[in-house]
Amino acid sequence: VIDRVALGIDIGGTKVAAVLVDSAGTVLARERGPVAPESNEAALASIFAVSDRLFDTYGRDRTQLAGIGAGAPGGIDWRRGVLTGATNLAWQDLPLGQALSERYGVPAVVDNDVNVAAWGERCFGGWPVPIQHLVFITVGTGIGAGLIESGRIVRGRRGAGEIGHIPLLENGPRCKCGLVGCLEAVASGPALGALGCQLAAGGSPTLLALAGGNAKAVTAEHVFAAAQQGDTGAQWLLERQGYYLALCVLISWRMLDPDVVVIGGGMAEAGPPLFEALWSALRRLRPDRSWGQQIGGTDARRDPSEYAVPTRLGADAGAVGAAALVLQPEAGFVEEGIISLPSR
Amino acid sequence: VIDRVALGIDIGGTKVAAVLVDSAGTVLARERGPVAPESNEAALASIFAVSDRLFDTYGRDRTQLAGIGAGAPGGIDWRRGVLTGATNLAWQDLPLGQALSERYGVPAVVDNDVNVAAWGERCFGGWPVPIQHLVFITVGTGIGAGLIESGRIVRGRRGAGEIGHIPLLENGPRCKCGLVGCLEAVASGPALGALGCQLAAGGSPTLLALAGGNAKAVTAEHVFAAAQQGDTGAQWLLERQGYYLALCVLISWRMLDPDVVVIGGGMAEAGPPLFEALWSALRRLRPDRSWGQQIGGTDARRDPSEYAVPTRLGADAGAVGAAALVLQPEAGFVEEGIISLPSR
Repeated sequence: VIDRVALGIDIGGTKVAAVLVDSAGTVLARERGPVAPESNEAALASIFAVSDRLFDTYGRDRTQLAGIGAGAPGGIDWRRGVLTGATNLAWQDLPLGQALSERYGVPAVVDNDVNVAAWGERCFGGWPVPIQHLVFITVGTGIGAGLIESGRIVRGRRGAGEIGHIPLLENGPRCKCGLVGCLEAVASGPALGALGCQLAAGGSPTLLALAGGNAKAVTAEHVFAAAQQGDTGAQWLLERQGYYLALCVLISWRMLDPDVVVIGGGMAEAGPPLFEALWSALRRLRPDRSWGQQIGGTDARRDPSEYAVPTRLGADAGAVGAAALVLQPEAGFVEEGIISLPSR
Repeated sequence: VIDRVALGIDIGGTKVAAVLVDSAGTVLARERGPVAPESNEAALASIFAVSDRLFDTYGRDRTQLAGIGAGAPGGIDWRRGVLTGATNLAWQDLPLGQALSERYGVPAVVDNDVNVAAWGERCFGGWPVPIQHLVFITVGTGIGAGLIESGRIVRGRRGAGEIGHIPLLENGPRCKCGLVGCLEAVASGPALGALGCQLAAGGSPTLLALAGGNAKAVTAEHVFAAAQQGDTGAQWLLERQGYYLALCVLISWRMLDPDVVVIGGGMAEAGPPLFEALWSALRRLRPDRSWGQQIGGTDARRDPSEYAVPTRLGADAGAVGAAALVLQPEAGFVEEGIISLPSR
């Protein structure tokens, strides 16, 4: 019996990652390369280059290839498989689905990078039972969420899950979106790094040493390291980071009442220190009255470490999720018959 | 041609409202009566009494009756049409769907009161185009939301849309759910009334006069009236109320990216003063940078008064929405074949 495989492509702001995945979610091969942002043609060529190399290296018979899924940042017209545009990228109305389908002779689907990662976690996150409701929160350069409800991707009009751009902190800093107090402005990787810079400039020898003596060079990683080394200022920043992520989890949890919230993105690579800070905040923020424990999105019997969990797919979540869209088609795609097909 | 009609029942903490609605959403007749909370049998008898009276008064041939919808507070097992229990009500596992279906000989469906109101606004809110994505926020004794996404009710595991119980305000008051700083603890009707009481006790002659000289008797209505009369303290409370509701709208908007957010519940009856305060806060909270204007759940070209709108169905939203579940069945009910049918 020959298993079906899918090609999953994760397109980022600077690089393309591609994987071949079998129907159990196992990654058979990986490739990556730079993305060419300057034009539609250059972008397609850079995406094809990585995919071609993956097939060449792996050498697998293409008759097993069931289809191609792709996830990308910025605006996506998922019905037409078109990337409408993204910050830092000069693409405009790039018909990625059709182009991939034509080149490799199989069906292709395209969706937002965070939606795709959420779908990957849902299908291949290693759950003991099938998961119908899942929120995936990505924390890295930005903060966003992919929402799965009743086995469907929640998309809204143009894009749901913009959890990083709710102006929650009335006296918070200004966000690059123009609002004041968005969670992205205080809890993204660059935001935590900027807070670390302030701390170092104010006189944290640990942080300053980690950043090679340059207070302006402090990153989020340095803050995690300094906290581990006992720097109380960095520990306080980490505690705040846990609180802000707890707000993301609680907004997701109360609004969508999912089975689980999965946290990924670059910052999740910090691992236990980040998650301990998150769980500690969530334990403080559990309703302690029976009335409160009965409302939706509350589960007083479970510890937060059971429902707010790190990604298992890690940096592969986007690419594996894109492949998952082919191997376990999402209801919205199926119902609307949305898939790019080769013209021959 | 004889039109189909549906019976819609809205069960509250103290009263039952029932309406007969035709397929255009027109309310043909209304009845209401007290709800008996002490047992399942008493509750059913009180619900039947109102429904019977509606049919008696209206005298319409029951052959037109397409079915019955009911909305209720508290826990609902919508798959089985069972009310599992609610605060202040002694019901337990009340099989309402089956009971209604048996009594009137037609199919019946049951759902959460806020979901049902959201469905009513979606079907019969008088929109110029069909609405696929809608959030209904109810502000009254409590604060909650009903979420419609891609023409479906978002339910999550046990109950989605618990927007009133996200602990957003780190230094806010304690909520009855046990958490600190939930929006319900600062912006529900009773919360606004309590803030008004503090203001009156601190020396607001306008508020004190409106409450008959008793600072402890100040209600949310008094706060609205005092603000209209130029009381600056009450005007400040109203401004804060607008801000808190704006947070509810923005959480809904960024997370779900709906076509529209509808605001109902008892406090919406305050009308223009409340909505002007809300819109004013939302105008302040619009991203003013082009990057921010492109993210989902943002529509810089529209004024907030176009996308955060008062309920058109008013106090009928729940009952009309329950009837709408029959007249325009929701996809989740249809797919799962969830409907109580009479046994003969």
